[in-house]
Amino acid sequence: MARTAGSHSADTAPRIRAAAQRLFAQHGYAAVSMRQIAAEVGVQVGALYNYTSDKQSLLFDLMVVHLEDLLDALPEPDTAAGPMQALDEFVRFHIRFHAARPEEVFIAYMELRNLSPENFAAVESLRRLYEDRLTAILDAGQARGVFRVADTRVATMAIIAMLTGVNTWFRETGRLSLSEVEAIYGDMTRRLVAG
Amino acid sequence: MARTAGSHSADTAPRIRAAAQRLFAQHGYAAVSMRQIAAEVGVQVGALYNYTSDKQSLLFDLMVVHLEDLLDALPEPDTAAGPMQALDEFVRFHIRFHAARPEEVFIAYMELRNLSPENFAAVESLRRLYEDRLTAILDAGQARGVFRVADTRVATMAIIAMLTGVNTWFRETGRLSLSEVEAIYGDMTRRLVAG
Repeated sequence: MARTAGSHSADTAPRIRAAAQRLFAQHGYAAVSMRQIAAEVGVQVGALYNYTSDKQSLLFDLMVVHLEDLLDALPEPDTAAGPMQALDEFVRFHIRFHAARPEEVFIAYMELRNLSPENFAAVESLRRLYEDRLTAILDAGQARGVFRVADTRVATMAIIAMLTGVNTWFRETGRLSLSEVEAIYGDMTRRLVAG
Repeated sequence: MARTAGSHSADTAPRIRAAAQRLFAQHGYAAVSMRQIAAEVGVQVGALYNYTSDKQSLLFDLMVVHLEDLLDALPEPDTAAGPMQALDEFVRFHIRFHAARPEEVFIAYMELRNLSPENFAAVESLRRLYEDRLTAILDAGQARGVFRVADTRVATMAIIAMLTGVNTWFRETGRLSLSEVEAIYGDMTRRLVAG
């Protein structure tokens, strides 16, 4: 197998991931070939196969790492502080985490259709773990009479869609800072669930 | 130019649009060729060019028709009924219209990156007209003291993202009917903006 010098260096794997992510986000998974990914990294296509078995594995890996990072970064709710505080922290965390990763978010939502059934199921269960964290906050607030939510599962989906939507319009150079956006969404979310 | 019999029949143009929509939604715009679209319709690729100048025009046409249909279908607010009623109608309309058109919605959001700059600007101004209709309802409610919204433009984007998000999880066979979903989102939206 032909190898470009340096293709085994320690940073090749992250460079492959970064190249795949950039190309998938720009052109869509189906339009990108392993050859294009190799060219973007600067290695021979054969060298890619030292790091990944195929394009599907690259896509799956990008989505899993994104969701695992999300779950790792999500702060544990401070149970003493109460559900309203926990909700507020979730809102700020979600907006900030996603605003910093537009390509990952785009791929995570858009390329679900291109996952194999087993990979889709694995990605969906990771995403479900994240959603469950918000549902738990809503259920806790409901149980304590702080929130009044008709259906905490539907409210979970509604709040997450609302928050992720910031990525479609927020620009660093716009009239609002990200902190201001977080505050406005925090207020809207509190009112959406308040008892 | 080779022509398949019937390629000039009155229904060829809508069949081309339908085929392009199906293929773009399934594989993504960049991965679909004019040759595949022709094969899906059952005409020679040359015959496509009697109906469209290129793939970009097909994509642009799909997005424009989707947004024009949306604007045409949106009921004029009944000003006598007041902003809360107008908001409720907007919520129900938005969910129902989008739930019935998952492919159009997917393409309208996902393929913006593949529009030429002029086409992007045209699509964005149509979408803006739709957003403006919701902002006007929020502004009216704000002026009459019925709503209390920190930023009606941000609230517009938040509400639309929340409502469109129904498409990512709603299934006809799920535990909730679309009418029940509309009622729950109607309630959440009212609370989000209520004064």
